[in-house]
Amino acid sequence: SQASKLLVLPGDGIGPEVMREVAKLTQWLSTARGLRVEIAEELVGGASLARHGVPLRPEVVTLAKEADAVLFGSVGDPNWGHVAFDKRPEAAILGLRQALSLFANLRPAQVFPPLVSASTLKPEVIEGLDIMIVRETVGGVYFGEPRGIETLPDGTRRGVNTEVYTTPEIERVARVAFDLARLRGNRVCSVEKCNVMESGLLWKQVVSALHEREYPDVQLSHMLADNCAMQLVRNPKQFDVIVTGNLFGDILSDLASMLTGSLGMLPSATLGAVQENGKRHALYEPIHGSAPDIAGQGIANPLAQILSFAMLLRYSLKREDDARLIEQAVSNVLASGLRTADIMSEGMARVSTETMGAAVLQEM
Amino acid sequence: SQASKLLVLPGDGIGPEVMREVAKLTQWLSTARGLRVEIAEELVGGASLARHGVPLRPEVVTLAKEADAVLFGSVGDPNWGHVAFDKRPEAAILGLRQALSLFANLRPAQVFPPLVSASTLKPEVIEGLDIMIVRETVGGVYFGEPRGIETLPDGTRRGVNTEVYTTPEIERVARVAFDLARLRGNRVCSVEKCNVMESGLLWKQVVSALHEREYPDVQLSHMLADNCAMQLVRNPKQFDVIVTGNLFGDILSDLASMLTGSLGMLPSATLGAVQENGKRHALYEPIHGSAPDIAGQGIANPLAQILSFAMLLRYSLKREDDARLIEQAVSNVLASGLRTADIMSEGMARVSTETMGAAVLQEM
Ligand SMILES: CC(C)[C@H](C(=O)O)[C@@H](O)C(=O)O
Ligand SMILES: CC(C)[C@H](C(=O)O)[C@@H](O)C(=O)O
Repeated sequence: SQASKLLVLPGDGIGPEVMREVAKLTQWLSTARGLRVEIAEELVGGASLARHGVPLRPEVVTLAKEADAVLFGSVGDPNWGHVAFDKRPEAAILGLRQALSLFANLRPAQVFPPLVSASTLKPEVIEGLDIMIVRETVGGVYFGEPRGIETLPDGTRRGVNTEVYTTPEIERVARVAFDLARLRGNRVCSVEKCNVMESGLLWKQVVSALHEREYPDVQLSHMLADNCAMQLVRNPKQFDVIVTGNLFGDILSDLASMLTGSLGMLPSATLGAVQENGKRHALYEPIHGSAPDIAGQGIANPLAQILSFAMLLRYSLKREDDARLIEQAVSNVLASGLRTADIMSEGMARVSTETMGAAVLQEM
Repeated sequence: SQASKLLVLPGDGIGPEVMREVAKLTQWLSTARGLRVEIAEELVGGASLARHGVPLRPEVVTLAKEADAVLFGSVGDPNWGHVAFDKRPEAAILGLRQALSLFANLRPAQVFPPLVSASTLKPEVIEGLDIMIVRETVGGVYFGEPRGIETLPDGTRRGVNTEVYTTPEIERVARVAFDLARLRGNRVCSVEKCNVMESGLLWKQVVSALHEREYPDVQLSHMLADNCAMQLVRNPKQFDVIVTGNLFGDILSDLASMLTGSLGMLPSATLGAVQENGKRHALYEPIHGSAPDIAGQGIANPLAQILSFAMLLRYSLKREDDARLIEQAVSNVLASGLRTADIMSEGMARVSTETMGAAVLQEM
C-alpha cells in the first residue's frame, strides 16, 4: 500500500521540543510495525515569521491540503505581539483552519486516573470525568467582517469585530456533536448566549431543529455560556458532549481541560468536511499552547503531543492498534510514577521532556 | 436630613423571595438606627411582562433615575424564552444599565471562611481568595449594531452581532479598576482576546496607555480570556482586580464566583459616572440569577441580596456602620452553623430563606 502523507508543523515555544519526542515514536513504528509515512516538516508561526517574514506560507497550505493529516505543535510568541493581525504567529493556525475548512475542533476533557491529585478540584468532583467539547472553528467573531480599528474625526478610536453564524455553519458542527454523542453518553449540551445575542438565538434554534429532524434519539439540552462556565466548576460530570461556537469554545474548552489537572496531557483533533474522495482534512494538536515561559528548558510535557499523534493514527490513518499501543504506553509510564513538572505531585519522579518521551518509547 | 430614595425591583424567580428578607432589615434599621428611606417597589422582568406586557416600563426608568440607589433582585423566566429580544425579562436589567449608563459592574469573588468546604476546589487553592472583577456593562457585543437574524434569498438564515469598544468606553471602566486596585492589592489584570479580535487589541492598548499616563504606581498585567479562565481554576489567588469587557466579564465573573463555593452569598454593584451634583447612579444586585428551578420553594439563599443591600448602604447612602452591622450579622449566622441548601455541608443546620433572614435580623 501507498505511504501516508504527514505534514508536521512544530511551531513555536515548546512545540518543537515536544514534537521531537513524537518523531522518535514515528521512527519506531516504521521499523517495528510497518507504518509507512512520508513526512514533510515545515516552519509555522513565529518560527516562520523569523525565517520567511510570514506566519504561514502558501506552500505550507498546499502541503497541508495534500497531506492525509497534519500534526501541529503550537504557535504564539510574545515577541510578535505588536505586529498586524495577519502577521501574528497565531495567524498560522487560524489560516490553516480556514484554508482546510477545519470547522470542528474536538477537545476531550478527560481525567487520567493517576493524575487526579494534580487537579485543583476535589477528587470526587473530577474522578472519571470525560467530556468532549466540540468547538466550531472557522466562523463566529474570529472571522466575521467588518472588523478593525478606526479613528473617528474627533480622535476617538473604535475597535470592531463581528460575530456571524449561518444555518449551514451551525448544522455541520452540530452534526459532528450529535454523531459523537451517539458513540458516547448520547447527550449533547448546546451552549450560547441567546438571551443577549441574536447569533446565539439562531444557534439554539438551528441545533433544536436539527435535533428534532435527525437526532431525536440523542438527549439535547441548552445552556447559557455564563452558566456553563459555572456548571463546569460546580459539577463537571453532568456533561457528555458540549457543542458551541468559536469564542465560547475557546474559553470553555480551556477551562474544562484545566479542571482535569492534565492540561499537558490533552490532545485535540480538528476536522473538515468529508470530501468526494471519502477523505477528510484533519489537524491534530495539543490543547496547550506554546508556553513561552518554559520554552527552551526541556521540561515541557510531551504527552499531549504524543496523544495527538495517537489520535491521528486512529482517525486519519485508521491504525487503531498503533494508537492503542501508544495510549497504553503512556498509561504505563504514568503508572510507573514518571511526571513532568506540570503534573508533578508528591512521591513521584520528576523528569524532563526527553526522559518522558524515551520512557513512552521504552514501554512500546 | 432628607430621606434617601430607594427603588426596589425584586424581579422574577427567587428575586421576590430573597428581597422579602431585605425588607425586614430595612424596617428594623428605620426603627432602631434612624435610617430614613422612601421606598418605591416596582415589577420588572417576567413579572412586569405578565402584568404590563413589557419587561421595563418607562415610569420605572424614571424612578430609577430619580432614586439614590436601586436594589435589584434578578430577572429571567424560561416562559418568555421565545419572544423578541426587547420583550425578554432580561431586557429589564440590560435596559436599566443602558438608561442609567451603569458601565462598571463590580463583582467580588470572595471566600467566606466558614464556607471553604462548600467549594468544589481544594481548600488550599481558595482559602483567603479575594478577587474583584470589574466588568464593562453598557458596551461590547451586548449592544453593538448591526445585530439581528436575517434570511438570505436562498433560505439560509444568518445571525449577526457586533462587538464594539471605543477609547472613552474603555478608559472610564479601566479607571474604576485602577482606582479600586489602589484601595486593595494594587494590581490590575486586563483581559481580552487581542490575538484574534481588534476590539480586544484596542482594549489592551487603551488600558496600557491610561496606565502609563495616570496609574504608573499600579501593577498592570494583560491576559487572554481563554488563559484567564484556566488561571482562575489553576491558581485564582494570583489575581487582585480583573478588568474586562461585557461578554468576557459575564463568563469569567460567574466562573470566579463559583470557585468560592459561595455563589448564593455574593453581591455586586453596578456604577454609573459621577454626575454634576456629585451623585452617581448605582444598582445593587446579587450575582446569582432568578434560579427558576428552585423558585417558590422558600429555600433560596437570601444572603447575596442582603449583602447587596449592605453595599448599597455603604456606597450610595454612606452608612458604613449599618453596612458593617449587616455584614457582621451574616458572619455570625454562618459561624453559628445555619446554611441554606446551596451552601450546605455536613454537620450544619439546613434552613429556609425565611429562617436565614430572621437569623440575620436576630443577630443585629
Ligand atoms: C492561538 C489562538 C489563536 C487559538 C484560538 O484562540 O483559537 C488558541 O487559543 C486555540 O484555542 O487553539
Ligand atoms: C440576565 C443577563 C442578561 C445578564 C447578563 O448577561 O449580563 C446576567 O447574566 C448578568 O450577568 O447580569
